[in-house]
Amino acid sequence: MNYKIYLVAISKNKIYHQAIQEYQKRLNRYCKIQLIHVKNKKQLLAKLPDKIYKIVISTTGQQLSSEEFAHKINIMAISGNSEIAIVIGEENIPHHELIAISPMEMDPELITTIVFEQIYRAYRILNNQPYHK
Amino acid sequence: MNYKIYLVAISKNKIYHQAIQEYQKRLNRYCKIQLIHVKNKKQLLAKLPDKIYKIVISTTGQQLSSEEFAHKINIMAISGNSEIAIVIGEENIPHHELIAISPMEMDPELITTIVFEQIYRAYRILNNQPYHK
Repeated sequence: MNYKIYLVAISKNKIYHQAIQEYQKRLNRYCKIQLIHVKNKKQLLAKLPDKIYKIVISTTGQQLSSEEFAHKINIMAISGNSEIAIVIGEENIPHHELIAISPMEMDPELITTIVFEQIYRAYRILNNQPYHK
Repeated sequence: MNYKIYLVAISKNKIYHQAIQEYQKRLNRYCKIQLIHVKNKKQLLAKLPDKIYKIVISTTGQQLSSEEFAHKINIMAISGNSEIAIVIGEENIPHHELIAISPMEMDPELITTIVFEQIYRAYRILNNQPYHK
């Protein structure tokens, strides 16, 4: 699987870097995952590949447990959707799915951190491995 | 208001320190907020004051938007509940309220980061200030 996480935010917030990098490192053994920072919707649309499977994170999206999210990743992996875009910070674009982390509004970088953590958690669940190494 | 955030976790995860410290610094002008790390339920119960108002974070708790959470803080502030405990990582204790961040399971330190961010966001909302300084 190849994940491209698009973070739409005007400025960069360094306080979450260490956490995101840690999950990216842990995910190396399961998948490719790349964080792509764009400043606005125009830049996002210019960079987003046409044919990639697009998941948008929104407070109004479908709520999932971590197990249900892991199941969704499993279904995508076996059905040929191996290129996944997850968009954070811009809801108003064409997409295949709208997923909610929480009804609470959060800093886009914090949502990005949660998405990385949930993808890592999903692979631990799918591989029957304990969350903590 | 005086918040005591009780994080129940066997080990400490440093990757969220910078984010938590940043929100703690920003919150200085609005309230007192203290992160108290305990290793288990026994330590938690020994440290938790009897008369403090206790909110437990759980995936099965009540879901709130950021505005609703801010409103709840406002109600507590004006009703004399000025000492608030928020417990993360241990659901099975006597409490006044059970609140959910998300139906997803998350690292307790990540939930702690979200709680700090939401308390900061609440004060920005209540004071009609933009989220970003």
